[in-house]
Amino acid sequence: MYPPVYYSEYLQLDKILDAQQPKSELYNVKANDEMLFIVIHQTYELWFKQILFEVELVRQIFCQEDIDDNKADLSNAVHRLHRVTQILEILVGQITILETMTPLDFLDFRDFLRPASGFQSIQFKILEAALGLRYQDRFGHHYYLSQLSQTDIDRVKEAETKVSLLELLNQWLERMPFLQNSKFWNTNSEALQQVQTHPFWQQYRQTYINGLLPSERNNQQGFDLLLWNDEQYPETRRLSPKANRHALFIMLYRDCPLLHAPYQLLNTLLDIDDLLAQWRYRHINMVGRMIGKRIGTGGSTGADYLQSAAQSHYIFKELAELTSYLVQRNHLPTLSSELQRALGYVQW
Amino acid sequence: MYPPVYYSEYLQLDKILDAQQPKSELYNVKANDEMLFIVIHQTYELWFKQILFEVELVRQIFCQEDIDDNKADLSNAVHRLHRVTQILEILVGQITILETMTPLDFLDFRDFLRPASGFQSIQFKILEAALGLRYQDRFGHHYYLSQLSQTDIDRVKEAETKVSLLELLNQWLERMPFLQNSKFWNTNSEALQQVQTHPFWQQYRQTYINGLLPSERNNQQGFDLLLWNDEQYPETRRLSPKANRHALFIMLYRDCPLLHAPYQLLNTLLDIDDLLAQWRYRHINMVGRMIGKRIGTGGSTGADYLQSAAQSHYIFKELAELTSYLVQRNHLPTLSSELQRALGYVQW
Amino acid sequence: MYPPVYYSEYLQLDKILDAQQPKSELYNVKANDEMLFIVIHQTYELWFKQILFEVELVRQIFCQEDIDDNKADLSNAVHRLHRVTQILEILVGQITILETMTPLDFLDFRDFLRPASGFQSIQFKILEAALGLRYQDRFGHHYYLSQLSQTDIDRVKEAETKVSLLELLNQWLERMPFLQNSKFWNTNSEALQQVQTHPFWQQYRQTYINGLLPSERNNQQGFDLLLWNDEQYPETRRLSPKANRHALFIMLYRDCPLLHAPYQLLNTLLDIDDLLAQWRYRHINMVGRMIGKRIGTGGSTGADYLQSAAQSHYIFKELAELTSYLVQRNHLPTLSSELQRALGYVQW
Amino acid sequence: MYPPVYYSEYLQLDKILDAQQPKSELYNVKANDEMLFIVIHQTYELWFKQILFEVELVRQIFCQEDIDDNKADLSNAVHRLHRVTQILEILVGQITILETMTPLDFLDFRDFLRPASGFQSIQFKILEAALGLRYQDRFGHHYYLSQLSQTDIDRVKEAETKVSLLELLNQWLERMPFLQNSKFWNTNSEALQQVQTHPFWQQYRQTYINGLLPSERNNQQGFDLLLWNDEQYPETRRLSPKANRHALFIMLYRDCPLLHAPYQLLNTLLDIDDLLAQWRYRHINMVGRMIGKRIGTGGSTGADYLQSAAQSHYIFKELAELTSYLVQRNHLPTLSSELQRALGYVQW
Repeated sequence: MYPPVYYSEYLQLDKILDAQQPKSELYNVKANDEMLFIVIHQTYELWFKQILFEVELVRQIFCQEDIDDNKADLSNAVHRLHRVTQILEILVGQITILETMTPLDFLDFRDFLRPASGFQSIQFKILEAALGLRYQDRFGHHYYLSQLSQTDIDRVKEAETKVSLLELLNQWLERMPFLQNSKFWNTNSEALQQVQTHPFWQQYRQTYINGLLPSERNNQQGFDLLLWNDEQYPETRRLSPKANRHALFIMLYRDCPLLHAPYQLLNTLLDIDDLLAQWRYRHINMVGRMIGKRIGTGGSTGADYLQSAAQSHYIFKELAELTSYLVQRNHLPTLSSELQRALGYVQW
Repeated sequence: MYPPVYYSEYLQLDKILDAQQPKSELYNVKANDEMLFIVIHQTYELWFKQILFEVELVRQIFCQEDIDDNKADLSNAVHRLHRVTQILEILVGQITILETMTPLDFLDFRDFLRPASGFQSIQFKILEAALGLRYQDRFGHHYYLSQLSQTDIDRVKEAETKVSLLELLNQWLERMPFLQNSKFWNTNSEALQQVQTHPFWQQYRQTYINGLLPSERNNQQGFDLLLWNDEQYPETRRLSPKANRHALFIMLYRDCPLLHAPYQLLNTLLDIDDLLAQWRYRHINMVGRMIGKRIGTGGSTGADYLQSAAQSHYIFKELAELTSYLVQRNHLPTLSSELQRALGYVQW
Repeated sequence: MYPPVYYSEYLQLDKILDAQQPKSELYNVKANDEMLFIVIHQTYELWFKQILFEVELVRQIFCQEDIDDNKADLSNAVHRLHRVTQILEILVGQITILETMTPLDFLDFRDFLRPASGFQSIQFKILEAALGLRYQDRFGHHYYLSQLSQTDIDRVKEAETKVSLLELLNQWLERMPFLQNSKFWNTNSEALQQVQTHPFWQQYRQTYINGLLPSERNNQQGFDLLLWNDEQYPETRRLSPKANRHALFIMLYRDCPLLHAPYQLLNTLLDIDDLLAQWRYRHINMVGRMIGKRIGTGGSTGADYLQSAAQSHYIFKELAELTSYLVQRNHLPTLSSELQRALGYVQW
Repeated sequence: MYPPVYYSEYLQLDKILDAQQPKSELYNVKANDEMLFIVIHQTYELWFKQILFEVELVRQIFCQEDIDDNKADLSNAVHRLHRVTQILEILVGQITILETMTPLDFLDFRDFLRPASGFQSIQFKILEAALGLRYQDRFGHHYYLSQLSQTDIDRVKEAETKVSLLELLNQWLERMPFLQNSKFWNTNSEALQQVQTHPFWQQYRQTYINGLLPSERNNQQGFDLLLWNDEQYPETRRLSPKANRHALFIMLYRDCPLLHAPYQLLNTLLDIDDLLAQWRYRHINMVGRMIGKRIGTGGSTGADYLQSAAQSHYIFKELAELTSYLVQRNHLPTLSSELQRALGYVQW
């Protein structure tokens, strides 16, 4: 058997519970809410560590040469990302606890903390990078580095060099095996002209266009830009046209067994974006109520930064946009029986 | 005794549970999620009715000539508004249920609903008006009327003529009785010159300015604009400078017994704004995921409208801004013992 | 196109919002919280209607001769039951709103409601029956009928005659197709001796026994009773030994593609039980705080009833018990490659 | 100015984020969910530290000779206890995250942890003691010590020697100043005969008895036992009859300004009990689903212990019981104008 384990040692509570040193105590000022301020940030950082741990496991799954659905690779990824959403729900909800600290209570110790700031949460920046936020897409990116120690800058920069979940997603979507290898819509590579001449996509595009209301006519342009005219595809986008098509296909035919987990994957990534946005948004409102239009302890006008970040840091927004290009289920092109079979369970 | 009551009759379940008629059923199309769509909107409307009921009771309290703290008027108002926050929390959380309907599921019956739209929720518009949103402050205000029946337009317009909670709040703040009647800072009316010559506000302003960091110097302008220079006060604002000062005073001296309930009142109003914003924001994200960049069933680009409404429909934002003008508790001017007494419980 | 639809007509708000008639108003007594009492119960009933609607769709899926995994039957069932859990989460959370009504507020109108009572919620009783709660398993079952009108008794009794989700689950588990038809562990029927002589179950049972700690030895008896000795199987149980084994198998090999949805199904049913229990439990505490040890408006000691119901109305508890008979993943018997193939996606 | 502060140093993240050492890693076994298991328990312990911190501040308030309502003592206590409820809400909600770990996932590393167990959370035991749970009232109290190190036993025992919040509450209720010093119902001490001969309580008791339904007649006995017959008062109870009466008085006349905070105090204590119960209850269900009827890692049948604790560890249940002895607001005895004045704000 294994050596006996004791709860407090296993959890290293000697470290965990000895890591709260209020500055107000140091300066002998009464500020009873600083303990809360420290503890809640520590729980945030613990949870960020856990989220990073899960995201790293998911990245490993998608870094494999062969992502094997029969080995539950995808459903494991979905499971881990779903857990991340559950954690994020708590992180959002937790803000309510911090809101029990009033602006006046915060002023009691706020001056002691300068120039520390939540911007300096390296784990959060690493998480954003791991998911797919690039340096150049960060709002006010020059700015944020100025607040970090060199070690921390190096850590974020290193994280930014690793292949992100968004990139891995794009790769995985591009090589969807059953579409690649089956004789469904291409034998070799799915080259540009094949899309526009391929019966499935021809039929799909026509169905889509027919279903548009007069007031929605513009949507056709979007469709063609993102799914049809690979040559004029905007370079700034992170998902390729091929990945777009495959993601759309997953959304449309999610009822086929092989597409259950892929659909859940896409959906869970959107959930994560949504929850990160909620987190930033509630954070904005909380900071706004706490410090009004004052500048943050870190020297920024906190609320403005968060507002902009909340709007620009959606990582999987290109997935979300595809929703505009769905057609009604009862107008969906019927799949060939061969493809249906390929997307199903073994029949006995 | 009273005549016996039966659960289903008391709740009029014959009406409540017989009010779901899916259009898809009418058109003989299978769309199993339309029932959810109907039911969740009905629960929203039931809760809106309840919120309106509570807000109306609060307005009645504030419409009294004499708001009597000794008769629990204020704490009743706080209690009812606190209940509104609890309801709004559920309304926000409930969106999760609707998110179990996928975009493809929605497309199954979406066409049957045109041009109906959530914009047509009259109760919600009436609620916004009752709280204090004016016609001219509504985002895209001409637009929204075009979707409503004349009866409904009349109902909203009538609601807009009634004195709003925001206006009542302003009136109540202006006439804060202990400040009015005590000899604290004015014997008669608090005329302009009195503010600038009054020892308390002079001292407070100086303390505030002294506490500003170099980078925060601009805040002095805001202070003077909102709290000091009554003559140059922006006409567009809803709270008067006097109301601003009194609200700030409440925030600063909330520990005095007489200010407990007033402070909770201000805080709860900010909670309501915050929750309405959360509701709109999650609503935006949900609609965005549901219909992408398509136009809403009502003909608008739903997401854009909601985005703008979320940013512009904060009703009590002028209260929130006052946070910028707090000073640290240990720098607060000491109140005269006379005023302290007036703000306290009877001593025996 | 379809005839235009108007929000308030579509939702039949004329009925929905005209169904609140406080008794206190009738008797001209001021009781401002009765409106909340009515509205919250109406939202509960609306949600119960929706839950029943979803459960009915799930029953239809399981009533089919051929539950076809390739047609997403199972994943649809999981999807609908997952939605039920989301609704139940809100129903649990909503209790917080009712808790803003204090005991004294409730006393203002409580006498007017006798003998009405939440026990008379027919939809909730029908839901319990639809899931699998039998008349004889209801706590105090004679009692509850005495409070209902004959029409309502008939409705519950009719619901109790229909095949319940628990029974359908048992049937589905028994006939798990791949185990039935493949040559895996039985060619014909899985008769008693086959279990005890079957290599897989022999190996599994031995592994299980080997893994027990000295203090857990008793568990072997449970294992044999529920999974091994079909002849001495307790008649009172709702799942057959065969269903037990198949459910356990699903839990163990949930990573095989064909078992993803079955595993989620079992898990979601446990979630539902869990949430119903939470609902009853929070309900108990709320009623306890509201009326103390008084008897409920319906004449019962509400808290006692709910306490007992909370303990005895777990519908899927036999599934939950199977957890005791899992073995560690790294000790799991390896499945034959034939069976692995049968449980997987098509390979190309 | 103060020396500059850096986020990660302020939060001592070097300690916090370096305190996760999975045993499975040590033994080179793959068990990816052990990290979650460690992290979630660490966040629980951080929050327990915060709760203890708040409860300690509240105890200090109540340990003062003179609890001064004019100095916001009571409203501060309420504020801190309200924060505790917000934290507990998150602790309850967080269980959802742990539920993403399936029984099979837990088995991957469960054996490595023996005999560690959640029973060994000293902070939680100290919290229970600080609130008022006595050694003799703990379910299975001999038992629990057997699992603890001597140091930890000493810590719990020391916590049990300190005066608990429940005892402080009793003392505070007994000496309610306005009742004590005003001429309301006693000039000196409130001796036994004074209760039974005092006009207020005589009238109140009669009103209460008159309001009982025939089926509620038994309640009179309870009333007399807890509020009327001080000589036969059960010794086992923690609140004295005098404290009971004063608590009831607070509940009845909570609308008087001086009783706002006292009422909120009582209510918040009941919220805490309620949330601790929810926490234990969801914990039970979670453990039950995780390990079934197996014994916990600590050697107990976890579910049984928690079930009993959930039922017996209500600390403020004597407060909750008083609800049975309320009368309708419109039957309440009118307070003398002298007492009303004493319970009000200063009038000017």
